[in-house]
Amino acid sequence: MHLTLQDAETLVTGVFEANGVIPETARSVARALVHAEAAGQYGHGLRRVPAYVGQARSGKVDGKAKAFASRPRPAVLTIDAALGYAYPAFDIAVEMLPEIAREQGIALGLIHRSHHAGVMALTVERFAEQGLAALMFANAPASMAAWGGRKRLFGTNPIAFATPVAGEEPLVIDLALSTVAAGKIMAARQKGEGIPEGWAFDAEGRPTTDPHEAAKGLMAPSGGAKGAALALMVEILAAGLTGSNFSYEASSFMEDKGPPPSVGQTLIVIDPGAGTVSATERIAELAHQMASEDGVRLPGRRGQNARRAAIENGLDIEDEVMAAIKALA
Amino acid sequence: MHLTLQDAETLVTGVFEANGVIPETARSVARALVHAEAAGQYGHGLRRVPAYVGQARSGKVDGKAKAFASRPRPAVLTIDAALGYAYPAFDIAVEMLPEIAREQGIALGLIHRSHHAGVMALTVERFAEQGLAALMFANAPASMAAWGGRKRLFGTNPIAFATPVAGEEPLVIDLALSTVAAGKIMAARQKGEGIPEGWAFDAEGRPTTDPHEAAKGLMAPSGGAKGAALALMVEILAAGLTGSNFSYEASSFMEDKGPPPSVGQTLIVIDPGAGTVSATERIAELAHQMASEDGVRLPGRRGQNARRAAIENGLDIEDEVMAAIKALA
Repeated sequence: MHLTLQDAETLVTGVFEANGVIPETARSVARALVHAEAAGQYGHGLRRVPAYVGQARSGKVDGKAKAFASRPRPAVLTIDAALGYAYPAFDIAVEMLPEIAREQGIALGLIHRSHHAGVMALTVERFAEQGLAALMFANAPASMAAWGGRKRLFGTNPIAFATPVAGEEPLVIDLALSTVAAGKIMAARQKGEGIPEGWAFDAEGRPTTDPHEAAKGLMAPSGGAKGAALALMVEILAAGLTGSNFSYEASSFMEDKGPPPSVGQTLIVIDPGAGTVSATERIAELAHQMASEDGVRLPGRRGQNARRAAIENGLDIEDEVMAAIKALA
Repeated sequence: MHLTLQDAETLVTGVFEANGVIPETARSVARALVHAEAAGQYGHGLRRVPAYVGQARSGKVDGKAKAFASRPRPAVLTIDAALGYAYPAFDIAVEMLPEIAREQGIALGLIHRSHHAGVMALTVERFAEQGLAALMFANAPASMAAWGGRKRLFGTNPIAFATPVAGEEPLVIDLALSTVAAGKIMAARQKGEGIPEGWAFDAEGRPTTDPHEAAKGLMAPSGGAKGAALALMVEILAAGLTGSNFSYEASSFMEDKGPPPSVGQTLIVIDPGAGTVSATERIAELAHQMASEDGVRLPGRRGQNARRAAIENGLDIEDEVMAAIKALA
């Protein structure tokens, strides 16, 4: 089915409202999921609607929650997502942190009692569009072990970063600290195929190429010990500093049973003009160096191009995805 | 040769002073190199003294430089390392950023016209010892390509992080974004051995197991595309925001010829009490979860134990290293 972005947002907003989610939150969540879909991030897009709605229905996510912010220090904003979806908390961050970052030079946003962060590239990019660099860290239900261990301790714990670039679109980096996304292992299992070595470990912590063993086991950290160390760092920044559940304490983002995941996200927003007036021009030089080389693509461009095309031409939504959404209305 | 840490610092300080380095800087550099040696980071320890002194002699490093700070925004400190060594600039950061971080909740330190960052674990740990979490980013002469490219664009661009832990020593993470340190490839070349696949590329960007081809080529980023993306992020944070040379513009940290490298370092210092009073207790719970598992070690402990042993028992310094140092006095 083909829909304009606006129509897709209206449809999805309506589905959330029909399931008891307050209108402002319904719009925020719909906007995030539709833009994820538009950016080609299908795993965080419209396919999430049934799981999201299921959690509102069961009360695992509070659809009536109102996120709110306080400012305990001049350069710090804490945002209580209030056990609702994460996106309304991100909207507050996008609205309030830029002024603090411009005034103080740097601003820290600490989000707690939160939920699935979705496509963090889209959130950090909203700061870059306002002329600010932004770093973002999130934790997630545990799927990776500490290096040398076999207990699930860390989520895939993504890091995202965006910066404005003089005369160009922002550079945007967004990566999970697992070697591959969990969805790839799920897909191999559904197709009855093996997975390459290096993607996952079995429940005993041994390398496996069997996706069934992998699903019961552990995701492999990107780059081995270094990825595991960065996942620990993200755990501390996103959960430790915000007062959130650690990944090993957090419930699923997909199932509608259990207590709220109550994870955390941390944003660090920097005014690139705080240190040197020419930062964004210098970053443009670096981007041009990269872009001048065959085979190199600038991080963020693929998603930006996909979104632009979707804004212009609309979205093609698979029939089964559309049917699942409409069944919830 | 066996020396106490204090005697080693005195010896090395004297060598730098004998080569025209002002006393305060000589003490700062000697302290950093001796503590790196004590932490078992030999590649950034006393073996660096000849290269460091050579650059002071040739004027590539200004041994008479005085680093100085200014505070352009309430939460930002810019530090001009003034084309001297990096460590005096770090000393200023360690002295001034904690008060700003406690007052504002977060503080940004932007260091430019700087040099080799040495063992960043030791620098971030100095903040954790004062009750603060710290993130640090540095760029370095180019040895890695953008993903898909074969031009040297990024340094191995390390990330370091330390956090206080209630009732425990700090957790400390310090990792370069290359798969291995350049020293491992140098060592294989000297021994006439091959290197494992995945460490490096030749000058055409093809995987190589020949350390000679690797030396003319490129270091492989940790985790492939994800490590390359993080190296770009560090490049922007450490060089772009500070107004420093990008890695592809920076001269060697080892040779005494050429212009100053003039690289940058960025510090983000956070008061863990800004968001939730119990952050360091919660981080202790996470550390205990990790430590309770066989085979898992807490990042930072090996260096901390080595340093403690060296403080108690002194350092064993190889004869050739000692001879090279004494020859410079």
